[in-house]
Amino acid sequence: MDYDVLIIGAGPSGYVAAIRAGQVGLKTAIVEKQYIGGMCLNWGCIPTKAILESAKKFKKLGEIEDFGIDGIDTGKIAFNWDKVKSRSKRITRKLTAGVNFLLKKNGIEMISGTARIGSDRSVWVDDKKISAKHIIIATGSKPKPMGDAFSNAPVVEMENLFEREAFPENIVVTGNHISSVEMAQFFRLIHKNVTLVTNSGYFLDGLDTFLVEYITKKLASDNIELITDAYPEKYADGGLTVGGKKVKCDLIVNCNSRKAIIPESETPLQLTERGFIKTTDNFQTSIDGVYAIGDVAGRSFLAHMASAQGIHVINAIKGIQAHFDYSTYPINMYTTPEIAQIGMTEQKIKEEGYDYKISEFPLSANGKALIENNTEGLIRLLSDKKYGQVLGVQVVAENATDMIAEAGAYLKVEATVYDVAHTIHAHPTVSEIFFEAGFDAMDRAIHK
Amino acid sequence: MDYDVLIIGAGPSGYVAAIRAGQVGLKTAIVEKQYIGGMCLNWGCIPTKAILESAKKFKKLGEIEDFGIDGIDTGKIAFNWDKVKSRSKRITRKLTAGVNFLLKKNGIEMISGTARIGSDRSVWVDDKKISAKHIIIATGSKPKPMGDAFSNAPVVEMENLFEREAFPENIVVTGNHISSVEMAQFFRLIHKNVTLVTNSGYFLDGLDTFLVEYITKKLASDNIELITDAYPEKYADGGLTVGGKKVKCDLIVNCNSRKAIIPESETPLQLTERGFIKTTDNFQTSIDGVYAIGDVAGRSFLAHMASAQGIHVINAIKGIQAHFDYSTYPINMYTTPEIAQIGMTEQKIKEEGYDYKISEFPLSANGKALIENNTEGLIRLLSDKKYGQVLGVQVVAENATDMIAEAGAYLKVEATVYDVAHTIHAHPTVSEIFFEAGFDAMDRAIHK
Repeated sequence: MDYDVLIIGAGPSGYVAAIRAGQVGLKTAIVEKQYIGGMCLNWGCIPTKAILESAKKFKKLGEIEDFGIDGIDTGKIAFNWDKVKSRSKRITRKLTAGVNFLLKKNGIEMISGTARIGSDRSVWVDDKKISAKHIIIATGSKPKPMGDAFSNAPVVEMENLFEREAFPENIVVTGNHISSVEMAQFFRLIHKNVTLVTNSGYFLDGLDTFLVEYITKKLASDNIELITDAYPEKYADGGLTVGGKKVKCDLIVNCNSRKAIIPESETPLQLTERGFIKTTDNFQTSIDGVYAIGDVAGRSFLAHMASAQGIHVINAIKGIQAHFDYSTYPINMYTTPEIAQIGMTEQKIKEEGYDYKISEFPLSANGKALIENNTEGLIRLLSDKKYGQVLGVQVVAENATDMIAEAGAYLKVEATVYDVAHTIHAHPTVSEIFFEAGFDAMDRAIHK
Repeated sequence: MDYDVLIIGAGPSGYVAAIRAGQVGLKTAIVEKQYIGGMCLNWGCIPTKAILESAKKFKKLGEIEDFGIDGIDTGKIAFNWDKVKSRSKRITRKLTAGVNFLLKKNGIEMISGTARIGSDRSVWVDDKKISAKHIIIATGSKPKPMGDAFSNAPVVEMENLFEREAFPENIVVTGNHISSVEMAQFFRLIHKNVTLVTNSGYFLDGLDTFLVEYITKKLASDNIELITDAYPEKYADGGLTVGGKKVKCDLIVNCNSRKAIIPESETPLQLTERGFIKTTDNFQTSIDGVYAIGDVAGRSFLAHMASAQGIHVINAIKGIQAHFDYSTYPINMYTTPEIAQIGMTEQKIKEEGYDYKISEFPLSANGKALIENNTEGLIRLLSDKKYGQVLGVQVVAENATDMIAEAGAYLKVEATVYDVAHTIHAHPTVSEIFFEAGFDAMDRAIHK
């Protein structure tokens, strides 16, 4: 065997698996056909958050005078896409260079090319045959195409968004998930007319209904048209027909649901009904010695879950038994304000038959939120009435995506609302909303 | 008896005690001689963070072009103290109105005046005698005066900083603690020449030496002169003599250490060597039925500790036994970047004889920090080698003061570095530095 582990795809599941494999002494190679870092570093998590950061800062300048800072002519402020794009690319380059360095440091061999799975634990990369005791497929996913009816339409996917020189006035974003909402808000923040067409029967599946309703109202107040009950039918003359109605459209941003990128294989891989690679709890595929992690396995489409799966699969290969927990991972939405969730939704809690309590605390009663002028939002703590165990946490706040990490800690150790209430939080901080919500579970919030 | 509980002083220890007392059905009154909210809401935590927020935003505008936003002439940007001050006052008014509302809602009688402790569980407010089963002293503290040698010097204390119309060029801040550093940085952020004279034998006592060294370097790089080895001697002609050396000085901002505001009492209250009211672990003073909490008890000078003591003392009065934990409270410094600490310092860990490990992760390797352009800083996780228990956490980061809350959760439940490492953190978030530091404790950080 040439390697202990051969990984196909250098996105956040593959490269993390490779680094961990190197750390634990496995002879490892990673095959990548395009860019180190995959979707996440090159077109997804990182670049989209970079351009959103610029767009949010652009919007926030409108309130800078309220902070007592003079001398800004808001009429003159302009969003320079060229510079924003360059900045995003610089960040990506820095991070991919970092991943490259880490792969080398951990003794990982990097192979450029497209992999095809052969028989007997072998992989073909172009004409070269490589053998490995363990093969990990981490080839990711891509958006479902818009379809033949849109062959004449101006369509851009995230993978080529950063090649564009400029954006027209009327943007239609398609898709039903978090990144669809983020992109719709991005274009609205830079003053485009935006329509979000969910292009499927559900919207933000997996998020608590409370949060879905919150963001739905938010989109309306931001003047983003949301269409959830109809699909795009055809495109003609700057207009997209959606459910019989014509929507102004100069550009379609395809943020549709994703489909697996399945590598070629001599022995066909068993797939799930939805077309992802079928795996066991330890990410074993139907082929002995071949694993699949990340988007291609279809269990989650979040980079942090992909990375956690990368660590888990190397542990499994090393014989470390563990249970991969799908119940307590954070889900973040980088909107304004940000939305974050961890643990069970209220709907799931009901389904499981818990006697539960929802305790809340609004940001409008938090001193630091007032200081930062970020009073929109709240925390919701969902707990079991009998023992007080925290079952789920939802945060709507300017910085909710980082704040949810504290909730992650409580859920990880199965903490109770009493633990949350009696964890002393520094004053003044936005995170004080946690202990207030903890006390609110006993109807004893101080500032409510 | 007129009341179950009578509280003297409506700062963050007194008003929180009052609200909790009302919540648990105790007939309660609170006496305040000046403003609801005390030092914290009127001159301390809230207003200083409000003006720091404005000053930080003022500075951050210098990098807005890097984010791809055009049209700002940095030469024209001005810090408008008048507006900044008004904004800070608006926030204070809103919060004190909120506290007022909460006191009323919980049935607390508010008495205006100066309290004097009488005999037999009585309190005089001016000419009126009031009796209560339990009397809680929460009268706070004030800065040590500069002394007679400075009677001719222009001195301002936090309590009258917000009365000033403007600030001169050369500012000397005195004091050795966190708020001294924050005020020194505030004046530097708005382009004043600043000297910080610690005015005592130690600097930032209680903070880990690592953090003290970090901020010392930071002050130097910000061109703030720091004098720790000499006291101010005299003031004359725009100059302050410090240790024989003359320092340009148009205004002294007195952020000296604080001394207790001891209420008059017929039976003298026993004091500590440092002049604070002596109390038992349950905050009982030397007079039966009289308690002291917050700054006046001298155990801590942090608002969140004062509030926690307020809750604790009401629990104690209601017969709920608990141990007040002085080992796991957060300490925040709202500098740029922010600095936060919780749990034991390295010095304390050594003293206690632990076999310990320090694991670290730098912000420069964190994707979200890059996106936010906030790559200065790091996390330090101090853990027990044998069991992996987290003993202390230190964070230097733009938003460290909120991030430390996650560390509070781990310490509250006595979590281990394994818990920290295996808590899935959302990507991309700054809080990912926690799990990286957790893995680093096993020499397995992914991105290091």
